[in-house]
Amino acid sequence: MASADFVLRRRVQFYETDVAGIVHFSWFYRYMEEAEHALWRAAGLSIHPPDSDLGWPRVAAAFDFQRALRFEDEIDIHLRIAEISRKTIRYECVVKKDNEQIAIGSMTIACVRKTPTMRAVEIPDDILTRLQLKAANNG
Amino acid sequence: MASADFVLRRRVQFYETDVAGIVHFSWFYRYMEEAEHALWRAAGLSIHPPDSDLGWPRVAAAFDFQRALRFEDEIDIHLRIAEISRKTIRYECVVKKDNEQIAIGSMTIACVRKTPTMRAVEIPDDILTRLQLKAANNG
Amino acid sequence: MASADFVLRRRVQFYETDVAGIVHFSWFYRYMEEAEHALWRAAGLSIHPPDSDLGWPRVAAAFDFQRALRFEDEIDIHLRIAEISRKTIRYECVVKKDNEQIAIGSMTIACVRKTPTMRAVEIPDDILTRLQLKAANNG
Amino acid sequence: MASADFVLRRRVQFYETDVAGIVHFSWFYRYMEEAEHALWRAAGLSIHPPDSDLGWPRVAAAFDFQRALRFEDEIDIHLRIAEISRKTIRYECVVKKDNEQIAIGSMTIACVRKTPTMRAVEIPDDILTRLQLKAANNG
Repeated sequence: MASADFVLRRRVQFYETDVAGIVHFSWFYRYMEEAEHALWRAAGLSIHPPDSDLGWPRVAAAFDFQRALRFEDEIDIHLRIAEISRKTIRYECVVKKDNEQIAIGSMTIACVRKTPTMRAVEIPDDILTRLQLKAANNG
Repeated sequence: MASADFVLRRRVQFYETDVAGIVHFSWFYRYMEEAEHALWRAAGLSIHPPDSDLGWPRVAAAFDFQRALRFEDEIDIHLRIAEISRKTIRYECVVKKDNEQIAIGSMTIACVRKTPTMRAVEIPDDILTRLQLKAANNG
Repeated sequence: MASADFVLRRRVQFYETDVAGIVHFSWFYRYMEEAEHALWRAAGLSIHPPDSDLGWPRVAAAFDFQRALRFEDEIDIHLRIAEISRKTIRYECVVKKDNEQIAIGSMTIACVRKTPTMRAVEIPDDILTRLQLKAANNG
Repeated sequence: MASADFVLRRRVQFYETDVAGIVHFSWFYRYMEEAEHALWRAAGLSIHPPDSDLGWPRVAAAFDFQRALRFEDEIDIHLRIAEISRKTIRYECVVKKDNEQIAIGSMTIACVRKTPTMRAVEIPDDILTRLQLKAANNG
């Protein structure tokens, strides 16, 4: 499944920096998730609707860091649905500033049902359809 | 009600600093809450036990900042139960480093029942007793 | 000095929530600071320009919390310059959702020069002028 | 180079949880870094001494998540120096609770000199020696 990029523009906040003068690396994983949730909203979905029995725990997340970000930098978080399997979704993410690549990452999430006990389940059809449609339409 | 200080020792972490080279001020509110939860554990309680219908939302929190903290500083968070009313608890907090005062704050929490709808309730007797006993015994 | 409100619209992120299901109270202090930095940018300033010898440490910050915020809530952070003295600035802040007041806070910052040793200094005229102009023009 | 595990015990804090009721995944990268800095201290080093011209930016960091952590869980962060090259260090990390594996990760850092311009440099001998000695002596 090919997917065009979804792009979220966002500014670096003061509390995201550290004493080394740059954005603390832990924030990139939050940037990636922010873009994911914005993509879901753009697809007409919420990843955490009130009272839903579905959950989407993160199974893996990784980043390679090439450049640093600083206070008030304006960044573009490019998110792409790289693969949808029956029970998981894998994203690829590139963080850019002024069109220059800052970091590249990936994240895999699983679909679970929370009751009676937490277990992996198949992604519901309506969610699948909306995400696939969104993936095809970005750019 | 007088209360001796409960003291939590803790080290400043790298991700708590910002580009100004010091601990970001938002962390002091977390330090105060960390000490609160440690005080509750020391009193044989958890402020958020699994499946409890009680909650303890923060009603107010404030800090005055006198000095800065830096990476790897070892700090002492002094917490004192300043007042327990029927439905609320007020703490006073002093953050110290090498016995020098860094910041002074306060926090008020309320006891609520979450179902059927969120509402303020009286603090249960067993919690009241344990906290009062703990308050009298610190120092 | 009277000041019209500066307003920053912003969405609650997943990582800002806690196990109680609501935004952790420590985030409101970050929301207030986000609005402050956006106000400075709107006034043609940065509160932390590269290589500046000026700093703006927080002297005090407080919030009273009336209602809870949840994941994906869209909020308006109203910030007002309540007072500018020779060496300090005091802000007042109201966080609203759908025009309903969620929390009300305040923050005081001081102007310092960092070298040769950190000391309080008078706010430079050009910063004063720009902030006062911005304060008069919002709304 | 083989290395025994360095272990940091630590309790999950309230502000590390999210509305899904578990520790937000971004915190595991901070846990890994906390253990790294504790390992350096145990080796008689600081990763960020005042006025040092050396820096240690993160080049890559990844985690696979197997189980969830909850408020007040006591966890053990196992950190191992997996490889030291001339200019980089790679760590492997396992987060455990009650001896059960929760997550497994890795992180690579580079040694840089900050002036006159940021560039990768060889790890100084005294740091190399202390880390290698520490790596051989844990467990």
